[in-house]
Amino acid sequence: MSLLEPLHRQRIAQKVGGHQSGRTLDQYFYADEAVYQAELDAFWRSGWLFAGHSCQVAEPGDYFVYKVAGDEILILRDDEGRVRASHNVCRHRGSTLCQDPAGHIGRIVCPYHQWTYGRDGQLLACRGMGEDFDKSEYRLKPVHLEEVNGLIFVSLAAEPMPFDAARAEMAPQLAPQGFDRAKVAKIVDYTIPANWKLVWENNRECYHCNANHPQYIKANFDHYNADDTTERVRTAITSATAKQEDRWAAQGLAATHTATGMCVFPDAANKIWFAANRTPLVDGYVSETMDGRQVAPLMGDYQAPDVGTLRMRTLPNFWNHSSCDHCVSTRLTPLGHFATEARVIWLVDRDAKEGVDYRLEEIMPFWQLTSEQDWELCELAQRGVTSSGYQPGPLSPVKEYNVMGFLKWYLDVLGTWAGKTPGAVD
Amino acid sequence: MSLLEPLHRQRIAQKVGGHQSGRTLDQYFYADEAVYQAELDAFWRSGWLFAGHSCQVAEPGDYFVYKVAGDEILILRDDEGRVRASHNVCRHRGSTLCQDPAGHIGRIVCPYHQWTYGRDGQLLACRGMGEDFDKSEYRLKPVHLEEVNGLIFVSLAAEPMPFDAARAEMAPQLAPQGFDRAKVAKIVDYTIPANWKLVWENNRECYHCNANHPQYIKANFDHYNADDTTERVRTAITSATAKQEDRWAAQGLAATHTATGMCVFPDAANKIWFAANRTPLVDGYVSETMDGRQVAPLMGDYQAPDVGTLRMRTLPNFWNHSSCDHCVSTRLTPLGHFATEARVIWLVDRDAKEGVDYRLEEIMPFWQLTSEQDWELCELAQRGVTSSGYQPGPLSPVKEYNVMGFLKWYLDVLGTWAGKTPGAVD
Amino acid sequence: MSLLEPLHRQRIAQKVGGHQSGRTLDQYFYADEAVYQAELDAFWRSGWLFAGHSCQVAEPGDYFVYKVAGDEILILRDDEGRVRASHNVCRHRGSTLCQDPAGHIGRIVCPYHQWTYGRDGQLLACRGMGEDFDKSEYRLKPVHLEEVNGLIFVSLAAEPMPFDAARAEMAPQLAPQGFDRAKVAKIVDYTIPANWKLVWENNRECYHCNANHPQYIKANFDHYNADDTTERVRTAITSATAKQEDRWAAQGLAATHTATGMCVFPDAANKIWFAANRTPLVDGYVSETMDGRQVAPLMGDYQAPDVGTLRMRTLPNFWNHSSCDHCVSTRLTPLGHFATEARVIWLVDRDAKEGVDYRLEEIMPFWQLTSEQDWELCELAQRGVTSSGYQPGPLSPVKEYNVMGFLKWYLDVLGTWAGKTPGAVD
Repeated sequence: MSLLEPLHRQRIAQKVGGHQSGRTLDQYFYADEAVYQAELDAFWRSGWLFAGHSCQVAEPGDYFVYKVAGDEILILRDDEGRVRASHNVCRHRGSTLCQDPAGHIGRIVCPYHQWTYGRDGQLLACRGMGEDFDKSEYRLKPVHLEEVNGLIFVSLAAEPMPFDAARAEMAPQLAPQGFDRAKVAKIVDYTIPANWKLVWENNRECYHCNANHPQYIKANFDHYNADDTTERVRTAITSATAKQEDRWAAQGLAATHTATGMCVFPDAANKIWFAANRTPLVDGYVSETMDGRQVAPLMGDYQAPDVGTLRMRTLPNFWNHSSCDHCVSTRLTPLGHFATEARVIWLVDRDAKEGVDYRLEEIMPFWQLTSEQDWELCELAQRGVTSSGYQPGPLSPVKEYNVMGFLKWYLDVLGTWAGKTPGAVD
Repeated sequence: MSLLEPLHRQRIAQKVGGHQSGRTLDQYFYADEAVYQAELDAFWRSGWLFAGHSCQVAEPGDYFVYKVAGDEILILRDDEGRVRASHNVCRHRGSTLCQDPAGHIGRIVCPYHQWTYGRDGQLLACRGMGEDFDKSEYRLKPVHLEEVNGLIFVSLAAEPMPFDAARAEMAPQLAPQGFDRAKVAKIVDYTIPANWKLVWENNRECYHCNANHPQYIKANFDHYNADDTTERVRTAITSATAKQEDRWAAQGLAATHTATGMCVFPDAANKIWFAANRTPLVDGYVSETMDGRQVAPLMGDYQAPDVGTLRMRTLPNFWNHSSCDHCVSTRLTPLGHFATEARVIWLVDRDAKEGVDYRLEEIMPFWQLTSEQDWELCELAQRGVTSSGYQPGPLSPVKEYNVMGFLKWYLDVLGTWAGKTPGAVD
Repeated sequence: MSLLEPLHRQRIAQKVGGHQSGRTLDQYFYADEAVYQAELDAFWRSGWLFAGHSCQVAEPGDYFVYKVAGDEILILRDDEGRVRASHNVCRHRGSTLCQDPAGHIGRIVCPYHQWTYGRDGQLLACRGMGEDFDKSEYRLKPVHLEEVNGLIFVSLAAEPMPFDAARAEMAPQLAPQGFDRAKVAKIVDYTIPANWKLVWENNRECYHCNANHPQYIKANFDHYNADDTTERVRTAITSATAKQEDRWAAQGLAATHTATGMCVFPDAANKIWFAANRTPLVDGYVSETMDGRQVAPLMGDYQAPDVGTLRMRTLPNFWNHSSCDHCVSTRLTPLGHFATEARVIWLVDRDAKEGVDYRLEEIMPFWQLTSEQDWELCELAQRGVTSSGYQPGPLSPVKEYNVMGFLKWYLDVLGTWAGKTPGAVD
């Protein structure tokens, strides 16, 4: 704990209390280094973080490493086929264990002094420590992990908040998509020169879509928020939904969001940091691709391509847009107060063959372009909010209600953290 | 405000009080990050900063952006032909507005959500904010601007100090040079790895000139300070001045500095942070060029080339050396405690055509070489003053009186800032 | 002094007190910036630092610069042939004096205003400072220097701790190697992305050798620590020692370490931060080269190649491994909390001619490979100890006793520093 942490907690609490509803955040939350340190604690070492997809560790011994908040989390499938997470740190002298970002291992042998751990994290060998040495006290430090229908979430918290409600909400929505029978088609990593909150603020409204996302708006209804919504738009959504209703029902699917605007998310009052829903695409679009056509084999349980689009999101670091034939997951990781890593992962059915059943140039552009357009907007916002010319601005009640919701959730979590008595000086 | 700011103010005040006149600064002023933060407040967000030349925004809609102290100041000529300054920040979500360093715009349209401002800064359109929204409350946040004979000064202060005395001093000196009828021939940006004060300390004495500025000393008298001044030098200045007196008088010009050494500047006791004067060049030089020849058409009101040299300087960030045929402005901007940006701008008459009336290789070398020689010396000083082997050294009373003057002014401004009660925690 | 230094001293003292013997350090010592600042004071501006070899400044006027802890130390041989150290900083405006990392100078002329110093540091000339100016008050600020048989140590302390015991220990061991009759064959500089303490912890045990140093273990016994030591190994050491005893005695040499494992070093209780000893190499090795053969002319007083290996080390920044025909010195310099510079210097007899008497590709690989293998391990340790998954781990009593010794010495020095009343606010 920093020497000044108690004072910083006071100030954070004061600033949280001073927030004016309906407006953007005070500059303090984007610029003060103490806030970033608090966020690491309150969000990134406490919340449930999306780490990756189960299919990235398909076989026992497969692993990947997720670097977040200064830690390296080793995600590894054990011999019983269970996915486990632990710190990628030897219990002896602290050396990093697995050096590659992803790979396959038998036992985990520390490169430094060859302490050896099983895939379940048990310390198996440590020559030179003497006969009395109790190996059972030195298993790899575990990290909490929850797997839900092919998605892996981890938490660095000592006692994470319950995952049950998130599972209950997401599992039924996720099931037909077949994430557990998918494979990674492509991963692209970005460094966005912007605070992670600005990335979410961008994500939580489509006020900016009409001018900035020419591809997205061709496929989706949700850029016509509230005051833009004409009878024509309302009718189009209703018509698109109606057309699909029978076929969806036959597949056991349901449209869970058919209103104009984005579905409400998150909801601080009810501790809702997760959401999943299915919504129709515009007429003529069966996949979020450049021309709306299906470009890869159907995934999961789908029997026909017109399943609309499945959307998921969990705070603080994940969203996904899934079509009938491919899925696109985005994982955020803060790299400091002024930069955020975004990993974008494209998935297809595990049996689909690149170049035969699908081509990257067909499945990637829609979300690659849309993502990169957003990163540029986030960068422009970052440049501005750190200026002395910035002051909290007014949010549109009809177009930015979800930005207000995000800020409310953020301030609620941060304020709760600030109000707690910090741990004793450690 | 930083949590420790009150304590830092106390320490700054104490350190200012401990300065020993006639010596260089304590290392603290070059090395402590709190000093840099204080300087941003006391000098860079308070003083009048040279931003650029009016001819850089010749037509309505022309703009350039000056980035300083974390801010982006948008300098734009409005439809009435008036130059205005405002923060380059949208009042909605804080996005940066004009993304290029310079350009031409009709209305100012925010790239994020298309809020639209007039060239005068008025908010004209912001769809989605509802009928009741009062646009008049959201004009671009203005920045104070003063234009004096083609030079643009800005101040980020809420209530800047008066500009009148500076205008009164500079306007008559500037008038014949015709800055308002000039054009930019070339801009070169440098990053000097040195504290901005070291750049000024270098600028405020010519003790270093004889060994380091072979070009400069051929054209100028002022490297012969005091104890170097022989009867021969004194006679040469008098003779050069006398020769020009009649012709200057005919042009309405006057030599305002004809003594040996540099004219005294700044003057903390009298709040003098600005200066302008005309001084003769050595015999045979009519322009600060490599061989002293005129290399571009006469500027402004000049009717003959032998007008000596016009010199201006304003603290904390500007100096200019003007000859009959071209001008060279230098604008300083701190990039942190250990680096300073220097922008050097060469101007000629607006009707002069490159390659026909002037050539860059003739107008640039004199001040380009002299500037770059200085930047190297500043870098060497920076390396030394942050060493534990550094301690304040003695200044020459006959060669470094202006360094003493600069330090006095600096400590006066900083000490005043430190003595004020800081604003309430914001 | 930082505003919070008194509080940081308290916390350091508390953390030192909380160290659990037999375990690695608390993360705090690797990660808190205040600890690094304290270390600069307690170790790097207080201790005796190896700077380089006397043969690097063979002639009067030869110099090199050692940059450490923000300072530049100028090491220069004066006209009387004595090696001197001073700050490479002009007493006038603080400019850096000698700009190259090494070279030859007559007088020291400051590039800024040409203040001129003799090779003994006396200020000889400073035009413009007036008749009354007392030059004797402005000699270059000296740095303490001790030379011992061709090795140069410096201390930035105002009053360094005594060097006598170190000299008494090292001089007799060093003498036959002939460092004073050597020359530099090669210098390689590395930046290790690891805290300097991790580099020492790596250096102070050979637990990691068997798996990581295939070259080293072929030549040396000391990777067979304690529990690995079989009767066969014990016999081999005894046999190797016995074989050499007569010939060593004839040369006036003695094996000072012939036990298994590494000789004990350092020893906080007895203030021992220096060590030197001679130990046998394995049968068939007369030099630490890839195949054990002699690859350069004998150095110093040696009359036969089988002199074993001479090993020296001084804290906080030096170790050396010397064979009959070449020596390898390693000098550490912290570049911050998370990086360390390592300079590795290969020496041979001064009369040996490259390409004729020795070849770099024969004298370099053994220690170049071993060093680079270690740097990689240090980097892995650094990545781990800053993770929240790190906690102090158990050290092997039979293989890591010298790591314990190093940590004890480190905590002793740091704790003493923390317990002192800091200087008044300066």
